Amino acid sequence: MESRSYAHHFSEHNIPFGVASSERHPLPRPATRLGNTVFFLEALYRQGFFEGVTNLPYDVLDQPNLSQLAALPRPVLRALRQRIQDEFKQNGLAAVLEEAKEDMDDVKLHLPVAIGDFSDFSCSLEHVKNAGRVIFNDGRPPPAFFNFPIGYQGRASSIVVSGTDIERPLGQFRNPKPAAADAGADVKPVIYGPSQKMDYELELAAIIGKPLPMKQRLKATRADEHIFGFALLNDWSARDIQGFEMTPLGPFNGKSVGTTMSPWIVTLEALEPFKVMGQPQSPVPAYLEDLNRTTYSIRMQAEIVVEGKATVMCVSRVQSMYWTTRQMVAHAVSSGSSLRTGDVLATGTVSGPGEGALGCLLEVTRGGSAPVRLSCGGSRAFLEDGDTVRLTATAGDESSGVGFGECTGRVVPSQPFDDCNGTGPECGRL
Amino acid sequence: MESRSYAHHFSEHNIPFGVASSERHPLPRPATRLGNTVFFLEALYRQGFFEGVTNLPYDVLDQPNLSQLAALPRPVLRALRQRIQDEFKQNGLAAVLEEAKEDMDDVKLHLPVAIGDFSDFSCSLEHVKNAGRVIFNDGRPPPAFFNFPIGYQGRASSIVVSGTDIERPLGQFRNPKPAAADAGADVKPVIYGPSQKMDYELELAAIIGKPLPMKQRLKATRADEHIFGFALLNDWSARDIQGFEMTPLGPFNGKSVGTTMSPWIVTLEALEPFKVMGQPQSPVPAYLEDLNRTTYSIRMQAEIVVEGKATVMCVSRVQSMYWTTRQMVAHAVSSGSSLRTGDVLATGTVSGPGEGALGCLLEVTRGGSAPVRLSCGGSRAFLEDGDTVRLTATAGDESSGVGFGECTGRVVPSQPFDDCNGTGPECGRL
Repeated sequence: MESRSYAHHFSEHNIPFGVASSERHPLPRPATRLGNTVFFLEALYRQGFFEGVTNLPYDVLDQPNLSQLAALPRPVLRALRQRIQDEFKQNGLAAVLEEAKEDMDDVKLHLPVAIGDFSDFSCSLEHVKNAGRVIFNDGRPPPAFFNFPIGYQGRASSIVVSGTDIERPLGQFRNPKPAAADAGADVKPVIYGPSQKMDYELELAAIIGKPLPMKQRLKATRADEHIFGFALLNDWSARDIQGFEMTPLGPFNGKSVGTTMSPWIVTLEALEPFKVMGQPQSPVPAYLEDLNRTTYSIRMQAEIVVEGKATVMCVSRVQSMYWTTRQMVAHAVSSGSSLRTGDVLATGTVSGPGEGALGCLLEVTRGGSAPVRLSCGGSRAFLEDGDTVRLTATAGDESSGVGFGECTGRVVPSQPFDDCNGTGPECGRL
Repeated sequence: MESRSYAHHFSEHNIPFGVASSERHPLPRPATRLGNTVFFLEALYRQGFFEGVTNLPYDVLDQPNLSQLAALPRPVLRALRQRIQDEFKQNGLAAVLEEAKEDMDDVKLHLPVAIGDFSDFSCSLEHVKNAGRVIFNDGRPPPAFFNFPIGYQGRASSIVVSGTDIERPLGQFRNPKPAAADAGADVKPVIYGPSQKMDYELELAAIIGKPLPMKQRLKATRADEHIFGFALLNDWSARDIQGFEMTPLGPFNGKSVGTTMSPWIVTLEALEPFKVMGQPQSPVPAYLEDLNRTTYSIRMQAEIVVEGKATVMCVSRVQSMYWTTRQMVAHAVSSGSSLRTGDVLATGTVSGPGEGALGCLLEVTRGGSAPVRLSCGGSRAFLEDGDTVRLTATAGDESSGVGFGECTGRVVPSQPFDDCNGTGPECGRL
């Protein structure tokens, strides 16, 4: 259940979209949040609340996810959101019938869209330099870094909603502490077991609304037409599994462990007042050109929570990244591939300049070699079982009234393979 | 439209599943093929043809794709196929009402399933050694090659059905023929334009039927329970775009150009008589162990067709690959991720030992340095506009009666970006 602590992220300036259910609304349905109240859009519709909104079909609100809603023309989405905002400003939505609202404590939040493809990029120059230094002892960015946002495809079926436990994965990797007999070997022996280097990554994700057919392509300056909104993403990474598998085809199982998405999609309209110019860039081909390098002033934060005590690991800013989300989207379709409603395109780790702005433990602890102190008294090289990672973000500063709430997940121990949920037919025993 | 030439692949020993439409059956619906006749399963059902098949709901046949059918319990699928096979053996399906059948010439074939995730592996030792030699001047396989089938996630939305044109992609890559002023530079300048190194890859794909929830994992010996069947796959690759982008996150746009899938899914039951033991392997962790290294005797073939004249580029065999499809599937879920109905897991290029068994042009022409002669008189370093690539395969030999038909695609010229299908709102102009 999402915490009540982030009510101030959900002022009348936000009006995000999500999917909720409750005892009175047992079927997951599109919803919005104001403070700590969740409003079911389908129930609002039935009360005639959206009568002034033209071309809003009831069906798109009577769905288990936002996919049909997200594909609506932008003017309809804008009018729908405006209607809620106006009513709230006028009378705080007091006139809305009880049936349409629910306290945050009484709802369960679900994955907001049916995920299409999941692409993940490396937009932050600091992240690739820091990661290169730790992994290859070479802080130079990858060869194509300044030419386009480099990226890879992730496992779409591994995306889960905030609050879902993340099981420490089993995998194959080089044993960091080989037995004495192997200690002198040039190359450490490969073992199969629970990852010893579980990490998080602090990311921002664009969710696609309006689709783009194959062979159409897109300029960065028009990418916003296809972005429904943004959510937070924790791209959990088993660094040891990832490190061993990724040459030369890139990350696979090390990143398929689970990828946590925050439940509320913050719209472009809510972020409009926070538009800023991004970083200077080397010349780019026309499809990536965006004179203003439009990005957003968004403060991202990652915390590790142990025994109820939170330690802030990182505060970084979206606008400090080299590439923008518009450029990410334009590059993803530049070879002629399509966009589908529900596609997720994430920025990669949002790291910025300076010690306090490192968006994953790989960077913070220099690959585990410099453990970080926690406020509970312990320290961490990588995540331990029971640790919760909490990502949060606000547009502008904490008092802006527009935030993303939280994106949390707790690391739970690897289940032994011969104990996988009993004796069901799906249970493959080792 | 698929060629009539492969009628002998579709004897009563095959009975594959696909999705077809026709003038009389305008809605794409599940179908099977016998010789050059296509049978609509939904129409057969309505004629009472499947009365003896228990637990077969009509709904799963009244769908635009095979996804619901593929998720049925294996005994039901087996009984459905058996019923068709028995009837054919007894009276050649002569008794089936006209309404349920259609000549191959009169049908259009569609993508058989709604694709979930698309994973592509490197199962062939010869392929990785040959590719390494061309790209890195190093024929050693990747570090983890003998530990597990290495793989990456592909773009699911780029998968298209056989017969779809493949547009030569635009992308960024190092100019192989730099201007005189740059010719002496250490690193060739990057240009943005149509790929100059379009290639195909001859692959076999497993299509997932029964899903596996997250955190369950799977032994290789039980992977077949989740495989609905197999299809051919051409993983079109723009080698120049891929080469520039893939360090360190793997292939992205160079492989998102379009991935062609054959329309008929050949079942495990049809392939059962062709089970053989795979190649010797180094020791593997228990989840990948498969005492018999069960694979199939399948003959794969790739041709380039220019001006109606076909040149056979490759004949290779599935059983010569180092890793099996069962091991591919088990590895994909070993970190705790799920399988969904419609997930596609492909073998990577099926290359074997010897000059005639190289499954892509990168290998055949040594990265373009040794162009190959075509029967039409020309030669190819990489594919040219207008070239058609045709993949075919049979279980056992050509007379086995069990084949995959064809998987074809034609390379068409890049459309200039400012000419992208007229003036529609989706059209991003440069």
